[in-house]
Amino acid sequence: MQRVDVLRRIVADAGADAAVVTDLADVRWLCGFSGSNGLLVVTTDGATLVTDGRYRVQAAQEVGDAEVAIASGPLFKHVSELNLLAKAEHILFQHDALTVKAHRDLTAAAPSAEFIGRSRLLAEHRARKSPFEIDAIRRAQKITDTVFGELLSIIREGMTEAELSAEIVYRHLRLGAERMAFEPIVASGPNGALPHARPSARRLQRGDLVVLDFGCVIDGYASDMTRTISIGEPADQEATRVYDVVVEALLRSTAEARAGVEAVQLDAVARDVIGEAGYGEYFQHGLGHGVGLETHEWPRVSHNAESVIPEHSVVTLEPGVYLPGRFGVRVEDLVVVGQKGADVLTTSTKELIRV
Amino acid sequence: MQRVDVLRRIVADAGADAAVVTDLADVRWLCGFSGSNGLLVVTTDGATLVTDGRYRVQAAQEVGDAEVAIASGPLFKHVSELNLLAKAEHILFQHDALTVKAHRDLTAAAPSAEFIGRSRLLAEHRARKSPFEIDAIRRAQKITDTVFGELLSIIREGMTEAELSAEIVYRHLRLGAERMAFEPIVASGPNGALPHARPSARRLQRGDLVVLDFGCVIDGYASDMTRTISIGEPADQEATRVYDVVVEALLRSTAEARAGVEAVQLDAVARDVIGEAGYGEYFQHGLGHGVGLETHEWPRVSHNAESVIPEHSVVTLEPGVYLPGRFGVRVEDLVVVGQKGADVLTTSTKELIRV
Repeated sequence: MQRVDVLRRIVADAGADAAVVTDLADVRWLCGFSGSNGLLVVTTDGATLVTDGRYRVQAAQEVGDAEVAIASGPLFKHVSELNLLAKAEHILFQHDALTVKAHRDLTAAAPSAEFIGRSRLLAEHRARKSPFEIDAIRRAQKITDTVFGELLSIIREGMTEAELSAEIVYRHLRLGAERMAFEPIVASGPNGALPHARPSARRLQRGDLVVLDFGCVIDGYASDMTRTISIGEPADQEATRVYDVVVEALLRSTAEARAGVEAVQLDAVARDVIGEAGYGEYFQHGLGHGVGLETHEWPRVSHNAESVIPEHSVVTLEPGVYLPGRFGVRVEDLVVVGQKGADVLTTSTKELIRV
Repeated sequence: MQRVDVLRRIVADAGADAAVVTDLADVRWLCGFSGSNGLLVVTTDGATLVTDGRYRVQAAQEVGDAEVAIASGPLFKHVSELNLLAKAEHILFQHDALTVKAHRDLTAAAPSAEFIGRSRLLAEHRARKSPFEIDAIRRAQKITDTVFGELLSIIREGMTEAELSAEIVYRHLRLGAERMAFEPIVASGPNGALPHARPSARRLQRGDLVVLDFGCVIDGYASDMTRTISIGEPADQEATRVYDVVVEALLRSTAEARAGVEAVQLDAVARDVIGEAGYGEYFQHGLGHGVGLETHEWPRVSHNAESVIPEHSVVTLEPGVYLPGRFGVRVEDLVVVGQKGADVLTTSTKELIRV
């Protein structure tokens, strides 16, 4: 079934007769358009991508399953001018991807229609990846694993976190990444205890653990991996023990990952390993998240997520332990979830590397 | 006057008694917080930044002129729990920076209040840069000029646009940039005729013009410059003439830039130069835009902008001519607008460089 028809079924199931898609990742998934300004109007008998003149050539090349309309002014005004919603009486829209101001412009384009706000309109469909999508993620992750291998020969005491981050970005782009999926995390020594630290001018010191978290984009799809390495022998006596616990949590949760498992149950497998080792209070984030056109997408794999992990979804598993003022350890793999188990895309070793 | 008091005056002028700031650049400008999840509630006698636990340490370090509250769940729920809007009857909010869903959560935090949607709540205040802000932009632009100088010794026939883009990113990060302000544009030969081309696998060829557009971020503030260079002698006979016209448009508009000039008038100076040379239809975008915490911010300098350029604003001036299927030329400087004229921050030559 064409993806636009998937949306038409959602529309029909909601008793509606049209949908306005404003989340750009959803727009891309539905019709292929990758520009930064656009929306897709889907009705029972039509589908139209509305964008601006900058994207005339690109939209013509990228868009399948939809007409392309070029607006000279605001996009919603053009929706109105083209009467795209003239026959619609009940219209789904994305209330988590539309500003209050844009909503006012949208309702003006169909003043007598009823508008029905929806969250996560296509999240569960986007989670079930096609072979093409899995291949793109695999190729992105291959670049990321290659870069990690290259880093091991250049990381040395005295480098700053920011210098190492520059190398990570440069090597991804040189290997053909379209862009980074997110700003790399290079968090050394005590900075490693901050799960979202930004690369700083701190120099890597002998005995530091260093948390490295990075990923790139190929054909629109993201990779995402974390490894924690040591500059020489770890200075903190507890470091190798914590490292082993985190890897054990990763391996056990990977072994439990399969289609149909509840996210909360998968999270609990890792959380129990870490809790039994006495570090439960130092693992404060969820176990993982879906990856695709967005680096973070549905399903969340967390103690408070209500989702069931679907077949062919691609998720991260990334347990971590963060000891404030001392160090952090996080190890993250990217896996494809199948009926019988998980296929791990990440090929880098999970042994503690000392450089 | 403290910036939070600037907002209080806007609130009072609107007959309101509180404001909820959800645009993250505005939040940063008001109280210093640079995280990716937060909002600021300002009332007549208080100001509170609400963020999540990831930013506990960072918010404590960054935020002045406001209390910090850490939410364990949704931010608006915490606004409600803390009764931050309990006494407010008329509340300004940013209808161009709040989703329909978040607006529902916001109104639930003050069910009996009237909510007043505003666009560009702080745009004109943010445009008037402080000496610190101008200095940060100057430092960012200095790195960008330095990188351009380095590029001239490495650009050669046969490199791909993507390889050159990787060098641009790497060298900015090595020189201390926090991050790139936007993805670099490296558009060679016919790709140069697409104003928003992305770096591709196309190899630079002898005779190509190459449009290079890039900038970085220092202390939160962006730089932005464009130069067009030639690989050897330009192959297209019209290239040097077009180049001279574009630079003339830049120089003439720079000479007219001063506090109080209308954006449309400044745009017209450049547009007239290009139009009189016969290329008017090939200059399809505005002349420039404000630069600060965001790479593109108020004021737009365009034929359909209604703004007057204020003193101490920092804007780009970036005329271009794009001949479809042949080549493009854009030359962009960053200027500080003063009472008597413009101070050009960009130091790279505007001569046509042949490498």
